[in-house]
Amino acid sequence: MKSGDHAAIDVPAESSAAVKGKAPLIASQREEKRGLNRGFGIADFLLRLGAIISTIAAAATMGTSDETLPLFTQFFQFEASFDDLPTFLYFVIAMALVGGYLLLSLPFSIVTIVRPIAVAPRLLLFILDTVTLTFATAASGAAAAIVYLAETGNPNTNWLAICDQFEDFCSTVSGAVVASFVTVVVFVVLVILSGFALKRQ
Amino acid sequence: MKSGDHAAIDVPAESSAAVKGKAPLIASQREEKRGLNRGFGIADFLLRLGAIISTIAAAATMGTSDETLPLFTQFFQFEASFDDLPTFLYFVIAMALVGGYLLLSLPFSIVTIVRPIAVAPRLLLFILDTVTLTFATAASGAAAAIVYLAETGNPNTNWLAICDQFEDFCSTVSGAVVASFVTVVVFVVLVILSGFALKRQ
Repeated sequence: MKSGDHAAIDVPAESSAAVKGKAPLIASQREEKRGLNRGFGIADFLLRLGAIISTIAAAATMGTSDETLPLFTQFFQFEASFDDLPTFLYFVIAMALVGGYLLLSLPFSIVTIVRPIAVAPRLLLFILDTVTLTFATAASGAAAAIVYLAETGNPNTNWLAICDQFEDFCSTVSGAVVASFVTVVVFVVLVILSGFALKRQ
Repeated sequence: MKSGDHAAIDVPAESSAAVKGKAPLIASQREEKRGLNRGFGIADFLLRLGAIISTIAAAATMGTSDETLPLFTQFFQFEASFDDLPTFLYFVIAMALVGGYLLLSLPFSIVTIVRPIAVAPRLLLFILDTVTLTFATAASGAAAAIVYLAETGNPNTNWLAICDQFEDFCSTVSGAVVASFVTVVVFVVLVILSGFALKRQ
């Protein structure tokens, strides 16, 4: 062990034992599985960080959308704000809840990195992610429908497009909806990744 | 083997061999896993049948929503139909696509019953279910937002409630949205069930 030659011979002898022997083979398989699951855990954590950013961006952009037109009379002022439309208010609340869930889920995501074989935290995240995905998608779809209506209007129901007057308001609101759809896509990837990680356990 | 006494002794001998022996134990574990996965497969198939019914109900109800008011002039007729609102048109198309996907997914669901250990069809269904869930939820959320607007109107944007006039149309359309949310809930259960089934494999 003290000479360099011995060390050079030791290495192949060890590796061939690992290939032929039964117990070391199972151990190395478990090690490989552990490594792959840790990889899934790290990807999960990074995706969650990305989702937190896009969710906060969506909630903050929508929550601060507010435009006052320069033309106003003594008694009346033309103003558009997200809380004029109940769907946008629901969108802000939903995105805030999704952001809160994502922050609370970070410790569990770290547990799946530290203990890659543990099934319980992975399964918990998988179920809650699926439910939150549905919640976030419904809010995004609803806001998108109202943004589309505000942009184009609808002559059949006499709902006029308000974006002709409130251009800044509409572009802010559209940006928030786009950010929320980024969150939705990240959630879809998170759920599918969890499925693969569960398969390996 | 010919006398009744021998048979009575044989049974406990066999069962104790299965408990103590290693090879039969592994075989029985595999058999148990196979049985559980087959159970997941059967639940998956039945849920898919339920989802097909609710999806077709949603698409058909929305697609046939149409109301003509009894009051009309010589040149003008008051009529409300789902294709007056682009969101409802998108809803019908989305539900038709989801229904088509569900029908096409039935053979794969049967494969997971016949071959409970196979991972590929289960994984394929899991990924496609997650994507379809998102698609269906966005369509349902969008339609729900428009239905809510049609019911309550919005004084801030001068969008009047049309349900005061078109009561039948609105109740039909609300029914379609409720049916689509049933589909969404079934999809959430399907995805979570797939996660559990993947964990067992």
